[in-house]
Amino acid sequence: MPDEKTAAWKLKDIALHLGCPYEGDGEVEITGVASLENARRGDLVFVGQEKFRKQLEETRASAAVIPADMTCGRLPAIKSPQPQMSFIKAVGLFFSSYRPMPGIHPLASVSPSARLGKDVSVGALSHIGDDVEIGDETVIFPLVSIYPRARVGKESRLHSHVSVREDSIIGDRVIIHNGAVIGADGFGYLRAEDGSSIKIPQKGRVVIEDDVEIGANTTIDRAALDETVVRRGTKIDNLVMVAHNVDVGSNSILVAQVGIAGSSKVGKNVILSGQVGVSDHITIGDAAVAAAKSGITKNVPDGAVVAGFPNIDIREWRKMWVLLPRIHDYVKEIKALRAKVEELEKKVK
Amino acid sequence: MPDEKTAAWKLKDIALHLGCPYEGDGEVEITGVASLENARRGDLVFVGQEKFRKQLEETRASAAVIPADMTCGRLPAIKSPQPQMSFIKAVGLFFSSYRPMPGIHPLASVSPSARLGKDVSVGALSHIGDDVEIGDETVIFPLVSIYPRARVGKESRLHSHVSVREDSIIGDRVIIHNGAVIGADGFGYLRAEDGSSIKIPQKGRVVIEDDVEIGANTTIDRAALDETVVRRGTKIDNLVMVAHNVDVGSNSILVAQVGIAGSSKVGKNVILSGQVGVSDHITIGDAAVAAAKSGITKNVPDGAVVAGFPNIDIREWRKMWVLLPRIHDYVKEIKALRAKVEELEKKVK
Amino acid sequence: MPDEKTAAWKLKDIALHLGCPYEGDGEVEITGVASLENARRGDLVFVGQEKFRKQLEETRASAAVIPADMTCGRLPAIKSPQPQMSFIKAVGLFFSSYRPMPGIHPLASVSPSARLGKDVSVGALSHIGDDVEIGDETVIFPLVSIYPRARVGKESRLHSHVSVREDSIIGDRVIIHNGAVIGADGFGYLRAEDGSSIKIPQKGRVVIEDDVEIGANTTIDRAALDETVVRRGTKIDNLVMVAHNVDVGSNSILVAQVGIAGSSKVGKNVILSGQVGVSDHITIGDAAVAAAKSGITKNVPDGAVVAGFPNIDIREWRKMWVLLPRIHDYVKEIKALRAKVEELEKKVK
Repeated sequence: MPDEKTAAWKLKDIALHLGCPYEGDGEVEITGVASLENARRGDLVFVGQEKFRKQLEETRASAAVIPADMTCGRLPAIKSPQPQMSFIKAVGLFFSSYRPMPGIHPLASVSPSARLGKDVSVGALSHIGDDVEIGDETVIFPLVSIYPRARVGKESRLHSHVSVREDSIIGDRVIIHNGAVIGADGFGYLRAEDGSSIKIPQKGRVVIEDDVEIGANTTIDRAALDETVVRRGTKIDNLVMVAHNVDVGSNSILVAQVGIAGSSKVGKNVILSGQVGVSDHITIGDAAVAAAKSGITKNVPDGAVVAGFPNIDIREWRKMWVLLPRIHDYVKEIKALRAKVEELEKKVK
Repeated sequence: MPDEKTAAWKLKDIALHLGCPYEGDGEVEITGVASLENARRGDLVFVGQEKFRKQLEETRASAAVIPADMTCGRLPAIKSPQPQMSFIKAVGLFFSSYRPMPGIHPLASVSPSARLGKDVSVGALSHIGDDVEIGDETVIFPLVSIYPRARVGKESRLHSHVSVREDSIIGDRVIIHNGAVIGADGFGYLRAEDGSSIKIPQKGRVVIEDDVEIGANTTIDRAALDETVVRRGTKIDNLVMVAHNVDVGSNSILVAQVGIAGSSKVGKNVILSGQVGVSDHITIGDAAVAAAKSGITKNVPDGAVVAGFPNIDIREWRKMWVLLPRIHDYVKEIKALRAKVEELEKKVK
Repeated sequence: MPDEKTAAWKLKDIALHLGCPYEGDGEVEITGVASLENARRGDLVFVGQEKFRKQLEETRASAAVIPADMTCGRLPAIKSPQPQMSFIKAVGLFFSSYRPMPGIHPLASVSPSARLGKDVSVGALSHIGDDVEIGDETVIFPLVSIYPRARVGKESRLHSHVSVREDSIIGDRVIIHNGAVIGADGFGYLRAEDGSSIKIPQKGRVVIEDDVEIGANTTIDRAALDETVVRRGTKIDNLVMVAHNVDVGSNSILVAQVGIAGSSKVGKNVILSGQVGVSDHITIGDAAVAAAKSGITKNVPDGAVVAGFPNIDIREWRKMWVLLPRIHDYVKEIKALRAKVEELEKKVK
């Protein structure tokens, strides 16, 4: 099976590979990785905090990766200043995600004018349109549709049922999960006098830069004119909507079911949490964070952390939501005060 | 036409089939089922409450299913202690949903190492990967993609454009509607020192138990390690997001556009209404209910009914939202009180 | 390239075509359209308001479309009473969206019982089921799935990975973007005594009238009985959910990630903004507007503009959200008033 690597490693060799010291029996043989609860003999597990000590002592795993300042217990352990990063590297020794073999499947439909790089894989029942370009070692899984003149870089992966519309540009090492749609028409109309909607032609395109990951069934619309852009290293979760002419900066995170309306500009290193909505023509500064379900209708400065709809500073939002559910008590108190004040007014008159 | 059964039934025979008494002319011939408004001669309709009496008297239907304690009017009627359940059974006499014939379409792409049960149907242009297992009488509609080593049970239905990713496990009598994605990578990254995101390998899988139904374009992500699980009998609507390592209990209901973040645990018999969001690592107890658009950031006990974001008891939430839109009046009253108190203070000083 | 028209037009000829006067050099040659920022020599740009004067003077474009009451500057300009509409018409001279050639691709799977009109295009790897009807000049892009007995009108476009389920009716000049699902089962169950859910058969269908546009990965469910209807000229954005038995009136706008629950009725010329939710069995009047993220749980009269959850008049909602974030101050003031009143009570006693 191409994606479960079968090799066994001695713990001491894994430690060497990670550049970390280890404690305990370095000769123990590691054959896989697992969670604390489900580990079996031969597995390496990860513990990031002292509070999981009990589970660590009880696991059936054979070894652990732990923080450098944590003491080793019953199990032999690799001690790392960045234990989660080290564990991820260790996972890579035992697992790599499924990758079909290079080559064009006989049931794929590839235009004669498409230009495919070296070691490209095109799966069964995928359609590659005219003048498409695909870079070296990119994997097109089965049942993908790429419209004419789209360009996909090298070492990218497009999963089943992805649509890439005409003229879209996709960079290197981009991963697009199943059912995502890149470059469908933006949603723009003029209202005619009779109330009907006149379609504004969506003549622009989508540009996805290198190292972006796009979740399942996410949609990124093409621009009316110009470009919708998702910049280098940004990660987008499932069922996200990025509208026409949006510009998402580099290394940002868009969590599931986020929606960004037309022409908004999201900075770099931004985090938009689940189900956030962003109005059109909004600017969100670098390294800003929006809490889940925020409705961003006002620009967000660099580094701000916001919540609510309309968006406010998250500390204000938290204070507010401690008090608002007690509104009933405050209203009662206002009534009581009114009665007392009236009483006083009578007496004082 | 394979899915409209053409038989006609006498009303008395339908009553016998349902195990219910009837009143009026049992010889009337029933050829279909319909709604009160759109029924035509020959149709059987359903009335669940006395308040629809007028529509019942005016319908063009030939007979009705009514509650056991409702009196029969102009139309002959089957009287049932569970009238809606009886009507559903009656619908089954005249209608079954579209099902292609068993057999592998010549334009399907099925790996030689896939193991298909008896009377499996694989539609045109579907791709079944290496080492996939599919149980007896399961229907794979056209344009479905099943990645290597996935297992699908018996009597299940996977509709067009469904993606089932590698190693996913799907039970018996599962229905997956068009475009749903089972087992795409979970959304997990570590932030590196330069601000870029390091992908955490998503090595786990998805397990969908028996009798689950999954709506169109819903996405259920594979676990990082271990499993994302949807347990027996749970029903999931369209455009729902279930993140990695989530565990949804049995017989629960997830309404459209719900999103559940990583590692949260939803009990059995739970109802999450439309557009609810659940934070990561949350526990929702058995038989709990969340109102539409709730943002669940705190654990929910068994049987609780919650609303709002952050979630509170729904009765508190309702009281709160009666008062909050009147905040303007309360603020005015506070100002008036302040003026009066200042006036009093002057007088009393 | 089929979708970038290569012709060059003189400005005076474009003005003639649009029926508008022009100022400046009518002989200037126009070869494309672009935004102010990205225009190059030969491009026609659009300026709708005086406030973009500076950009207009600085653009590299060769001519502009401007409002009739705006003065022409450095660039020759077409002056229009409806400048945006005129610009859209001008775009149509240089651009039309990608359209494959008529004909059935040899790798398409078309049932012998399907009836296709004149100049229909069926792309590679699309599946057309039994007894499907498709009108003249309609384009079925690659990898589309149309179930038996569905009907699609003329001059419509169904993009890759669209699913049209059995018996669905789609009108003329309808555009359905990638991954949309028309006619999957509605979400209806009865709860049995043991807590399990009994599926209510979804026997109805979906009707999409003429001139509707449906966004990527949107889902429109078939009715339980009767029909789910989207009426003439309505435009639906991406990732929208329209549940069973919903009726959306003509010329309405449903923005991205809207969800409408079962049996609700949306009037004509309605606008539901992004991420709005509508409860089941709700009526929304003609020309009503709901602000983003509204949760519509109460009927909305004709022409009303609402916001919030539960929905209230948008002016009330705006006033409320100016005051609510100051709740902390009001609570402090109430406490201060209480102290003063108690003080007064002591003195007055």
